[in-house]
Amino acid sequence: MTLTVLLAAGDGVFEDYDAPLRAAIAKQGLDAQLVTDAPAQTVDYIVYAPSSPLQDFTPFTNCRAVLSLWAGVERIVGNATLTQPLARMVDPSLTQGMVEYVVGHVLRYHLALDKPATSWTPVVPPLAQDRCVGFLGLGELGRACAGALRALGFDVAGWSRSPRQLEGIACHSGPEGLRAVLARSDILVTLLPDTPATTNILNATTLAHLPRGARIINPGRGTAIDDAALLAALDQGQIAAATLDVFRTEPLPENHPFWHHPNVTVTPHIAAATRTETASDVIAANIARVERGQPLLHEVSRHNGY
Amino acid sequence: MTLTVLLAAGDGVFEDYDAPLRAAIAKQGLDAQLVTDAPAQTVDYIVYAPSSPLQDFTPFTNCRAVLSLWAGVERIVGNATLTQPLARMVDPSLTQGMVEYVVGHVLRYHLALDKPATSWTPVVPPLAQDRCVGFLGLGELGRACAGALRALGFDVAGWSRSPRQLEGIACHSGPEGLRAVLARSDILVTLLPDTPATTNILNATTLAHLPRGARIINPGRGTAIDDAALLAALDQGQIAAATLDVFRTEPLPENHPFWHHPNVTVTPHIAAATRTETASDVIAANIARVERGQPLLHEVSRHNGY
Repeated sequence: MTLTVLLAAGDGVFEDYDAPLRAAIAKQGLDAQLVTDAPAQTVDYIVYAPSSPLQDFTPFTNCRAVLSLWAGVERIVGNATLTQPLARMVDPSLTQGMVEYVVGHVLRYHLALDKPATSWTPVVPPLAQDRCVGFLGLGELGRACAGALRALGFDVAGWSRSPRQLEGIACHSGPEGLRAVLARSDILVTLLPDTPATTNILNATTLAHLPRGARIINPGRGTAIDDAALLAALDQGQIAAATLDVFRTEPLPENHPFWHHPNVTVTPHIAAATRTETASDVIAANIARVERGQPLLHEVSRHNGY
Repeated sequence: MTLTVLLAAGDGVFEDYDAPLRAAIAKQGLDAQLVTDAPAQTVDYIVYAPSSPLQDFTPFTNCRAVLSLWAGVERIVGNATLTQPLARMVDPSLTQGMVEYVVGHVLRYHLALDKPATSWTPVVPPLAQDRCVGFLGLGELGRACAGALRALGFDVAGWSRSPRQLEGIACHSGPEGLRAVLARSDILVTLLPDTPATTNILNATTLAHLPRGARIINPGRGTAIDDAALLAALDQGQIAAATLDVFRTEPLPENHPFWHHPNVTVTPHIAAATRTETASDVIAANIARVERGQPLLHEVSRHNGY
């Protein structure tokens, strides 16, 4: 029987995903039709973007899984009508793009690439082994970035909600662990999911635990940082510079002080761009797994919220 | 019998190396005195920097090796009075510093880090796998940098004088090989020794073989590039940008057009800074090898010139 896959997404997304999703479904040998509208009871799978007007999942009584096109699921995970299994996007090209972004921006600060020489006064930067990069969040993305920086020779530390052990990385957890990681991070990278526990985790108190002159790179979630506290810490020199890819309101409003602060670099949510081809492959492969009776990959825990 | 090690270097170098060399000699358990002056026949080893006034090696009849503090030996290798074995500096921290420099500047171009966003117009760069980085020179430094970029996912090609085979890197040699590597290099890194064969290897003809809009990073030797041809290629848009760390005349004269060209980044010969501690360890270990009857490491071939 032909499967019905509903693509529930706002304007623009359908055009981007129509052809790659069809190609990925065909590649998996699935007998499936991709639709943007269908009677709710006939829908077998929902491919979901938060931009979709679909907010009530109650009528989709035969839907076997909701597959998010986005890595972050904070805009759907709290939806009480969503009783179907939910999978978040884990796209290898998304991880790869994030690694390139984080390594690039860490090296930009490490080597002072944005302060080009204007005269012959050689200043040799310390080696990577003498520079500590700390990670808040050691999920898929944090682990991949931490590993790449470790391979380049950096001294890498990390903090996560639950304890982890990672080769060559000083791992910490819990409130004391957070303070320990902050205290030694010359460059801090935040790659935390957006949950009540991570909201404003970087605030006036925790920013003060960083070494004076630390740099911050946030390609995770905008809610992790208290904007006003960060601006104050930048103005006091406690934080030397920040590179921010995610914000509480996106697009970042034109009059937001981040746009014009001399020590803030704004990137417009590009660190973890989902590439349509690889994301479509991941979704079609996950549907094929469920159809073969295998467990859904990357299922979101409603308890943890990610 | 106490060995006599002569440090032959210009002003400033002695102060930098005195303590680390003494410490490294002691660490090797060598019975040796470090001097800046001694009767020539009593000298067992010469530690040499090109800034030294010492140019006539004839009187050092009992000297068992000359150990260069620098990786580049072009200012000493042609010296006809030098009949003693010559070792070039291969300092692991020098290689590490070069890898950090090259990876940092490649990512700067790859991610357009020097063109910060001023409005919310997301432009997602291609993934590293879709960007070719070509290397001219696959010696110690070239191989280390090529491997690090390969590990980050870049498409890496390389050219060397003699044929090489390197895991995951498209290796070429000879004149046809040079053209092949140039033709596909979105970003070209030159890490060639300074020899008659590499002088002006990047000239009007070879620059035209690069894809239009290619970027060049030269942390190798200034003589590899015909300055006037590079400036013309930059002005024509054939080359989009260049990052140069080495020059025919150093310090780069204040009135040189490279200082003010909008698409040229000058770094003041910092890519391969020798760190005094690790360099001293390398030299003391090499002396200890010869004293034990083992062959000198990193001996320069007078025929090849490196």
